[in-house]
Amino acid sequence: MPDKLINDRLLTALRRQPVDMTPVWIMRQAGRYLPEYRAARQRAGDFLTLCKTPELACEVTLQPVQRFDLDAAILFSDILTIPDAMGLGLRVVENKGPQFARPIQSGNDIRKLNVPDVESDLRYVMDAVRLIKRELQGKVPLIGFAGSPWTIATYMIEGESSKNFSKARGMLYGQPELMHLLLDVLSRAVTDYLKSQIAAGVDVVMIFDTWGGILSQAAYREFSLEYMQRIVQDIKAESRSKAVPVILFTKGGGLWIEDIAGSGCDAIGVDWTVDIGAARRRTGGKVALQGNLDTAVLYSSPATIRRQVAEVLAAFGEADGHVFNLGHGIHPDIDPDKVAVLVDAVHELSRPYHRN
Amino acid sequence: MPDKLINDRLLTALRRQPVDMTPVWIMRQAGRYLPEYRAARQRAGDFLTLCKTPELACEVTLQPVQRFDLDAAILFSDILTIPDAMGLGLRVVENKGPQFARPIQSGNDIRKLNVPDVESDLRYVMDAVRLIKRELQGKVPLIGFAGSPWTIATYMIEGESSKNFSKARGMLYGQPELMHLLLDVLSRAVTDYLKSQIAAGVDVVMIFDTWGGILSQAAYREFSLEYMQRIVQDIKAESRSKAVPVILFTKGGGLWIEDIAGSGCDAIGVDWTVDIGAARRRTGGKVALQGNLDTAVLYSSPATIRRQVAEVLAAFGEADGHVFNLGHGIHPDIDPDKVAVLVDAVHELSRPYHRN
Repeated sequence: MPDKLINDRLLTALRRQPVDMTPVWIMRQAGRYLPEYRAARQRAGDFLTLCKTPELACEVTLQPVQRFDLDAAILFSDILTIPDAMGLGLRVVENKGPQFARPIQSGNDIRKLNVPDVESDLRYVMDAVRLIKRELQGKVPLIGFAGSPWTIATYMIEGESSKNFSKARGMLYGQPELMHLLLDVLSRAVTDYLKSQIAAGVDVVMIFDTWGGILSQAAYREFSLEYMQRIVQDIKAESRSKAVPVILFTKGGGLWIEDIAGSGCDAIGVDWTVDIGAARRRTGGKVALQGNLDTAVLYSSPATIRRQVAEVLAAFGEADGHVFNLGHGIHPDIDPDKVAVLVDAVHELSRPYHRN
Repeated sequence: MPDKLINDRLLTALRRQPVDMTPVWIMRQAGRYLPEYRAARQRAGDFLTLCKTPELACEVTLQPVQRFDLDAAILFSDILTIPDAMGLGLRVVENKGPQFARPIQSGNDIRKLNVPDVESDLRYVMDAVRLIKRELQGKVPLIGFAGSPWTIATYMIEGESSKNFSKARGMLYGQPELMHLLLDVLSRAVTDYLKSQIAAGVDVVMIFDTWGGILSQAAYREFSLEYMQRIVQDIKAESRSKAVPVILFTKGGGLWIEDIAGSGCDAIGVDWTVDIGAARRRTGGKVALQGNLDTAVLYSSPATIRRQVAEVLAAFGEADGHVFNLGHGIHPDIDPDKVAVLVDAVHELSRPYHRN
């Protein structure tokens, strides 16, 4: 069970219970837009060392929480730690993104995959979680996370970032049974990984389905949502984990939020293309919603940022169950001072929505 | 008025009238997946020469119609001919996409822009249309097209393809009045351009809003749909043009099809993420729908292609007003024989839906 938190606004909102003001955190809040992050990154030498060294991961996780009045910290890590632990050999190349030394190239490659022993193979993540929890001293909750099986699979098959995901989408239609085999092993790995993060102390878990939105609705249900649902249900079936809220975020999944709400998750992340008021009506209070200011708003003036924050808050309205966030990760060229404007605007302007 | 067409299935379906089978054409059907296209491209030397030489543009426009039993030809051109004619200096770099020598960098750059004289500055496009119409001899209709003002604007501001469109989205929030100035001149240019294509003989026009889907719903309405609607209304207000069907295609616009249907367009292109049956119910027969097989299906076997075609046809159901297409442009590495399978499957498997 998590220790008592000084600021538990995030957890309360995720349970759709009343809060004094809308909690806010920011996707990629520990990231390149912060000079202190860039300094730590340079000291580490490369991105993966930052992920794999608990002291460094802890340091960058805490940076945005120290600088801004955020209502949550999120573990600094990467969605590709799992395939790296499966032996694919992850490298993260500056300005090019992730690459695997040994991508999946055949059915045999898939059949040889094993669920990693997360407690040993990904021990550096759990060590980071324990260290961060200690350093946070209950100030704000810590969010753990994993990539969705589909999203991890796309990288494993493409071998790197891709524009069209031709290989992964080709396998989905051409060899669906192989794709299911891969997604099955990945969903078991993600389940173990998230349970292990919870055991190490995270207060919330989030599944990033970054590439679910490139699928048709039928393929999304069969190849992405189905596996996320299994993970949610496995987590909720374990008494130690079941009180930990689970957030699902499918970028580009705005058409399917009714389906996502049926997965058993506690909250849905919605991207900036969705009207969050419409999303609330469509999900009917069944889940909390997280989002969804357009990241590009942060290129504009403080007055414009405040006005756009006000519009998102007004769109969501007076109901409980809103966690403010951007609609996707913050861009590296955003001025950090704009983030302060955003965070303060959310807290200040949301008070009237929480008067009851 | 267009001459009598031998195959007018496309026009009939766009008017939501009964056809014997569902018409089909393919976005980027004249493109790199065809060896005869690659040969013509090599002879031309570069992409823009292909666009700007009417004989070559005609040749590649006709290639897919000669090879497959398609129900339409689409003009071979590029959505960036307009800013090129405005003096931005378009280059298309192999494997990198379009680049402008003189992108928009200030409000002054925008204020200096003029609507090009499409009849002279873009005469090569109209010459190509006239030549293609002559060569087609009424076999199938010819689709003309333009980019949407918003989509053209993103390229003009970014200077090239972009991942995040930070500059364009930044201007939208930070200097909305400048963005509107740019969109206004572009919408007048697109209107002139499409009217001129219609005068030269195209039977249908389509507006490609490739990047409308990166906007929030409110921004989409204000900065993309509003301008497309003006264009549609201007075209429909002119007696010579008003009988020519207009198709709007916003990639990633599945959340907003009710809005799009209210623009006065005749048909909406829907991408592969949308359930086309749900789209039909949401638009209630107000417009025809075009789409929306996942392009990645073409990586699979003929049997799978046929099954997936059958699913799209079944999802749309027995109503009039369906034009079959992919959900986005065909990929360059698709085997052309798979396109033949697709086209024949659409014709064969759609007959039962058109029995009344």
